[in-house]
Amino acid sequence: MTNRLVLQTMDDPGTHPVQISPRQSCGDSNLWIVAGPCAVESLAQLEQITQTLLQHGVTSLRGGAFKPRTSPYSFQGLEEKGLQLLHQMRQQHYMTVITEVMAIEQIDLVAAHADVLQVGSRNMQNFALLKALGKIEKPILLKRGLAATLDELLWAAEYILSEGNERVILCERGIRSFDPETRNVLDLGGVAVLKRQTHLPVIVDPSHAAGRRDIITDLSKAAIAVGADGLIIEIHPNPQKSVSDANQALSLEDFSDWMEEIAPIAQAMGRSLQSEAHLVA
Amino acid sequence: MTNRLVLQTMDDPGTHPVQISPRQSCGDSNLWIVAGPCAVESLAQLEQITQTLLQHGVTSLRGGAFKPRTSPYSFQGLEEKGLQLLHQMRQQHYMTVITEVMAIEQIDLVAAHADVLQVGSRNMQNFALLKALGKIEKPILLKRGLAATLDELLWAAEYILSEGNERVILCERGIRSFDPETRNVLDLGGVAVLKRQTHLPVIVDPSHAAGRRDIITDLSKAAIAVGADGLIIEIHPNPQKSVSDANQALSLEDFSDWMEEIAPIAQAMGRSLQSEAHLVA
Amino acid sequence: MTNRLVLQTMDDPGTHPVQISPRQSCGDSNLWIVAGPCAVESLAQLEQITQTLLQHGVTSLRGGAFKPRTSPYSFQGLEEKGLQLLHQMRQQHYMTVITEVMAIEQIDLVAAHADVLQVGSRNMQNFALLKALGKIEKPILLKRGLAATLDELLWAAEYILSEGNERVILCERGIRSFDPETRNVLDLGGVAVLKRQTHLPVIVDPSHAAGRRDIITDLSKAAIAVGADGLIIEIHPNPQKSVSDANQALSLEDFSDWMEEIAPIAQAMGRSLQSEAHLVA
Amino acid sequence: MTNRLVLQTMDDPGTHPVQISPRQSCGDSNLWIVAGPCAVESLAQLEQITQTLLQHGVTSLRGGAFKPRTSPYSFQGLEEKGLQLLHQMRQQHYMTVITEVMAIEQIDLVAAHADVLQVGSRNMQNFALLKALGKIEKPILLKRGLAATLDELLWAAEYILSEGNERVILCERGIRSFDPETRNVLDLGGVAVLKRQTHLPVIVDPSHAAGRRDIITDLSKAAIAVGADGLIIEIHPNPQKSVSDANQALSLEDFSDWMEEIAPIAQAMGRSLQSEAHLVA
Repeated sequence: MTNRLVLQTMDDPGTHPVQISPRQSCGDSNLWIVAGPCAVESLAQLEQITQTLLQHGVTSLRGGAFKPRTSPYSFQGLEEKGLQLLHQMRQQHYMTVITEVMAIEQIDLVAAHADVLQVGSRNMQNFALLKALGKIEKPILLKRGLAATLDELLWAAEYILSEGNERVILCERGIRSFDPETRNVLDLGGVAVLKRQTHLPVIVDPSHAAGRRDIITDLSKAAIAVGADGLIIEIHPNPQKSVSDANQALSLEDFSDWMEEIAPIAQAMGRSLQSEAHLVA
Repeated sequence: MTNRLVLQTMDDPGTHPVQISPRQSCGDSNLWIVAGPCAVESLAQLEQITQTLLQHGVTSLRGGAFKPRTSPYSFQGLEEKGLQLLHQMRQQHYMTVITEVMAIEQIDLVAAHADVLQVGSRNMQNFALLKALGKIEKPILLKRGLAATLDELLWAAEYILSEGNERVILCERGIRSFDPETRNVLDLGGVAVLKRQTHLPVIVDPSHAAGRRDIITDLSKAAIAVGADGLIIEIHPNPQKSVSDANQALSLEDFSDWMEEIAPIAQAMGRSLQSEAHLVA
Repeated sequence: MTNRLVLQTMDDPGTHPVQISPRQSCGDSNLWIVAGPCAVESLAQLEQITQTLLQHGVTSLRGGAFKPRTSPYSFQGLEEKGLQLLHQMRQQHYMTVITEVMAIEQIDLVAAHADVLQVGSRNMQNFALLKALGKIEKPILLKRGLAATLDELLWAAEYILSEGNERVILCERGIRSFDPETRNVLDLGGVAVLKRQTHLPVIVDPSHAAGRRDIITDLSKAAIAVGADGLIIEIHPNPQKSVSDANQALSLEDFSDWMEEIAPIAQAMGRSLQSEAHLVA
Repeated sequence: MTNRLVLQTMDDPGTHPVQISPRQSCGDSNLWIVAGPCAVESLAQLEQITQTLLQHGVTSLRGGAFKPRTSPYSFQGLEEKGLQLLHQMRQQHYMTVITEVMAIEQIDLVAAHADVLQVGSRNMQNFALLKALGKIEKPILLKRGLAATLDELLWAAEYILSEGNERVILCERGIRSFDPETRNVLDLGGVAVLKRQTHLPVIVDPSHAAGRRDIITDLSKAAIAVGADGLIIEIHPNPQKSVSDANQALSLEDFSDWMEEIAPIAQAMGRSLQSEAHLVA
């Protein structure tokens, strides 16, 4: 127990930033902003989103190519084609790409096309996958399971670290509860606890927690104020036509408002929203 | 359904401030700060706390005289004696006093000694009590039950309003969940939803949600950032010697730090921490 | 802690039966069956139900006169009139009557008309009410709160016992959880734990747990098999026209089938369904 | 939605038995009993357990070779060696072997050594694994996730069926909740609902739900009474020395008592405990 790699130690407290790309890291005074569609749909969609992100100095793009879906008959993502489209955004716009990997077999392919590999909530305790991701040289975004305790989340991270990959970023995205008004309950107290227990950066996904557009800005502000190191949100040029999670994606106009609304809170927390990568680009 | 008194209407959206004392209200651009001990213990305790509060411009004092306790053998509060001590703070220091009422039989006595009557989580659906509180002329602080849906909370408020008392303030204080790290899970998404659904002010109790001192400041900042109209927290001159909830009370020194730490977030949200009452006093 | 009245002791293990009426008790080899409508609606309704119960040797009738309702605008029960109708069933058919008491002010009235006073889930920690019920000489049916731990339930019972009333029967009726298929989750593991921890009888309410008619018989069998001392279910001559909880009440024909289906399980558990009271009547 | 393979249809209601071995199936009038250690530890352990099982006519042996563990530093199972030991029980004693598969890479190996492949709770929505298991010709025991809705469980099964493997058995093993007295809450209402919604057999794992030995027999009886098609429990020659889950395993003596205690309930439900396989062996 005493030698858990994920735990903060007395002689080295605080968050250790995780390097994500040559010019970007998570866990320092910058707030790491990641935005993009639930699922990659087309080149036009990614182009439009990327242009909007860059206008706001946001250089990290999320988007699902392999999509975990409750039903086998739902759209499962563009898969390799989706990865190629994401990769185009890296090459043409120097975007940092974050996308989900659902199986060991997909790791090489995803790692070749993305900067950060995401482990989704449903796979938080897919230990074989975690071990395999512990052997690659890309940062991992590890999402908390729907009913995972904070300790289980830290042990899941330990699976990755213990195999050699120290670049793990944790993500709180809501836990399952009883109230139908929101899809999940965002556990910001959990974020505060994690920030004290581990040196790993912790970011927040308000989109999946809320499951509804109207409170995403409020939850984003709260996440920044509680001390989160970043935010990952869903945006879409035309949310109503999104192939998945249509109710929770912000439009591109919403995104501009969102950036404006979170700015004062970030500033009050001493966090910069302007990434160096953007200044260079 | 359409005529629920608690719901916001199209032609009158936004929060309606609730008048708490001649010079103070909740739900406007001031952030309503309430602090004090879990249980009233002595005059010296209240004096010491009150002096600290006043130094920071805080004029609302909470403190339990009738205490709901899981065990019948636990300290049940100083009862009438506790009310008298709270009342002394009103008379000598012009404090606004908030304290819990647990039964219809206590209403007259509590109303004679306090400015705001609190309904605790365990009594959120004590409908006989709610109806009786609907007939008095004091504001009611209604805490959400441990497993109450937001809709049930609004219906509980409706019981009070429908009897004629429109001065109800809602309070989110954490819902019961599975993770032992925190006593409860603070549902800030619920606060965001409530702010959209009702014109009633909504405040947050981070102390009972956390059940641990170390994350109360973080949760307080998050609550302000999500749009809460106020905060109610537990403080104690000597938390370790508190007769109840010793793990979650802030010391008076902690409280000073807390006021300093929440200030930038309040400012970023356009909320004032300086109450008019204080300026006058 | 060691002197909790509700706990089983080494030198006196097992369940202590609670005397309910001169000829009936709960917690012995008889299975205590209680059935009746959610709300008392009319004399005709009670007569029809009582005739059906008596045909099956069931002599305990439940029915709400004071009804706790989420909304203040929902039917609140026939109140005193409802109690009088229940009382008629005692006088004319020697029925044992179980009905809810929601407030201290109602205790005398309810106690004058009923044999067993029920404390509903929402009032499980209405401590003032519990203390008052500890001073009367009628058995109390104490329902577990929606999110109450087993320990909190036992402490709630302790409030009653510590005031002198030792005739408390506990009731598991489902806890709040996340799955929308059933209204609540019936915690039969909790029943098994309670049977080991306390000498108080424990019964089960499958109707409120299920919230749907189709699985009530299955849950009733499971409750008997897990060791419950009784069952309390909702029946109605015309469930579709029930003024409340229409989806979960069994029809009178359903009730006959139910009695037939649970009989083999009761027998396998060594429990009799034939009450002595019936044999006499 | 209308063409979900897992759903019961009007013209073909009821449970379709799943053939597990030439002489054994699950979902018919026999109750399928599966018992064995949490983790395979040694040949001696398996021999001792198998002898006990056979004395009671139980021919299905569970045992973990690949063990999903919260911590990467906990014993991860004997892996291939464990599979070989299980296989010896098939060859020498004609046992039906059930064991967990945690990753696609393990499928061939596990399928070569076992009769039924188990998907654990943590992998219920490991969709890549489910799809791969849909392509093999062995029955799958699919455990419900800790916070999975019944509908999500049915969709997970659909992933397997839609790839061609129709032999899926569902398993309820407790959902995560708030009460520390039991490890999880066994959702027997969920079993009752599943029996109505799907033609797939449904079994119950009381060991993981309880997390404590003393209530496993009670929960087993309840599971049979609610209509479960089988039970899977943990037993160990020396539970205190078990390498994992020591608190919930029954001893071999306990197992004999258990068989005796559940028999009357099985009989009352018209279920046989005597498997044909045993009679032949």
